[in-house]
Amino acid sequence: MGKTRSAPTLNDVASHAGVSTATVSRCLNSPNQVVETTRVRVLQVIEELGYTPNFAARVMAAKRSFTIGAIIPTMDNAIFARGLQAFQNELRQNGYTLLVSSSDYKPEIEKEQIRALVARGADGLLLIGHERENEIYDYLKRHQVPALVAWSYLPDARQPSVGFSNRDAMFALAQDVINTGHRRIAMISGVTAGNDRAQRRVQGVRDALQANGICADDMRVIETTYEIDSGAHAFRDLMSRTPRPTAIICGNDVLAVGALREARRMDVSVPDEVSITGFDDIELAEIASPALTTVHVPHREMGRKAAQELIAMVNGTSKGVSTCIDTHIVYRASLATPPNGA
Amino acid sequence: MGKTRSAPTLNDVASHAGVSTATVSRCLNSPNQVVETTRVRVLQVIEELGYTPNFAARVMAAKRSFTIGAIIPTMDNAIFARGLQAFQNELRQNGYTLLVSSSDYKPEIEKEQIRALVARGADGLLLIGHERENEIYDYLKRHQVPALVAWSYLPDARQPSVGFSNRDAMFALAQDVINTGHRRIAMISGVTAGNDRAQRRVQGVRDALQANGICADDMRVIETTYEIDSGAHAFRDLMSRTPRPTAIICGNDVLAVGALREARRMDVSVPDEVSITGFDDIELAEIASPALTTVHVPHREMGRKAAQELIAMVNGTSKGVSTCIDTHIVYRASLATPPNGA
Repeated sequence: MGKTRSAPTLNDVASHAGVSTATVSRCLNSPNQVVETTRVRVLQVIEELGYTPNFAARVMAAKRSFTIGAIIPTMDNAIFARGLQAFQNELRQNGYTLLVSSSDYKPEIEKEQIRALVARGADGLLLIGHERENEIYDYLKRHQVPALVAWSYLPDARQPSVGFSNRDAMFALAQDVINTGHRRIAMISGVTAGNDRAQRRVQGVRDALQANGICADDMRVIETTYEIDSGAHAFRDLMSRTPRPTAIICGNDVLAVGALREARRMDVSVPDEVSITGFDDIELAEIASPALTTVHVPHREMGRKAAQELIAMVNGTSKGVSTCIDTHIVYRASLATPPNGA
Repeated sequence: MGKTRSAPTLNDVASHAGVSTATVSRCLNSPNQVVETTRVRVLQVIEELGYTPNFAARVMAAKRSFTIGAIIPTMDNAIFARGLQAFQNELRQNGYTLLVSSSDYKPEIEKEQIRALVARGADGLLLIGHERENEIYDYLKRHQVPALVAWSYLPDARQPSVGFSNRDAMFALAQDVINTGHRRIAMISGVTAGNDRAQRRVQGVRDALQANGICADDMRVIETTYEIDSGAHAFRDLMSRTPRPTAIICGNDVLAVGALREARRMDVSVPDEVSITGFDDIELAEIASPALTTVHVPHREMGRKAAQELIAMVNGTSKGVSTCIDTHIVYRASLATPPNGA
């Protein structure tokens, strides 16, 4: 393609791409009316030649940027990484590029990033969970940027979501823990403030206790950040109380792996002395020793379905339909009957 | 702030932000000349009011977008996640937003994403590793977008880098494996095509063998994708040969954890029958059983220093200075002397 020194013209683009100037204009203004291979070639020539060195003209002219933004709480957890990879693959097959931002679980950072992505011309946004200020949804509506929520299915919420019921999934796991014979159950939860997934997982455990005639108010719950060290610390805290819990339900696998590590350091046998469960079924859950009983969330399926729905919203062929993804429990060695006499 | 129905004017922005119209213009055209708190407030009002509903005018007017792009090979490995989190924190303290893209280790996807980020107005780019077409660097130069390379330190390369010497780090680890008594050493490597980190790790092992009078050409090297299952598969393959290796050096922790998992399934004792080592020191390395001897890479420090250097490049206060980060070996149970008679 080579470099051009002087400012390239519409004609330069057309001749390099082997199309008419009308086609070039159409690529910029009504990309839908141009077959994908042509559109991609023309846009490539535009970039190669630096036809719009400030790019802004193209974004202004085209109704679409073919860019989707996703804001996740953290990159440092395999669950988001895995789901997003599938999300991105599906987007790519439809000609979209994904740009990701991570908010470190902080609402004020998420807000900045939503603005930044909208300002960079994102056609649509993927957000995690439902809990955020209404003002943000108003802002997105004003800028006509469709947003889809993932990792949390709440059919009555304002935004459509592709996710799973965190409450029901955790209810089922807690029911299994109870069925295994446990009554003294404690929980290590993620920070619930601003995190509907964490809130609803705690709710699921409470509901299961109540459904089995166990007083949910007596359950010890430690809230902490989703880190291995935090899980370890919380485990030590819970096991220092009398009487000790016989089962500790953790808000995710990372916390559960931290609990397992601390159990080993304290010489507490899992599951003989205490059972530990996780949530997510990331690779750590299988690698851990003993391996974790946990809730399997089909992150890849969720990412793929979320991409399909968000593309439909951006195309205007869907106003946003919510989808509930099924989860299931994976039984491994970390859950067993409580010790005799407990 | 409330909604405005009619198109807002420069005066609206100035009065809402409590500044002069000159200050608003300065925020758009010479953001450097405005103190950060004012700039942030004014840009916020601009967004709130929808003063530039197509955003493009602002990107065109301002010399900066205060957006940095990063393209990583995958989100699905803790090493990039961790380094990027530190990279982002440092950027944020300097008023920049980070947008991340992942290329799935595919050069053609990386190329698309570089274009997309430049088209979205990124002020600078972080790239992983040095191996890519010169054409891409020409493109970035033409668009005056500075790029910094991380995860690989190569002082003679075209682009500046903040990273570590993959060759030297792996040389030191291989030297330790040899010092422990091993001579029959095999390697499970990442795919080396297009990946200078993987290439140089293999080189480090070869150089250590040669430095100790062991023929490097005889070393069995299996190249595979950086996945647990791939590591497991390669381990089974290597252990089916006669004579078996007494030590397997893995290109990263993920491959090593896969090898450990397969050893357990094959009932091969680690380290009694075979030693296994990793690279990166991610959480999996410590959680694995036995825990992995591995190279500790200070990903957070690297992310922070990369952000500082890239900001200086974007500000024009640095032309790009390369920095070499120190790594060290972490000794855990997976490395021991070879079995008797081996």
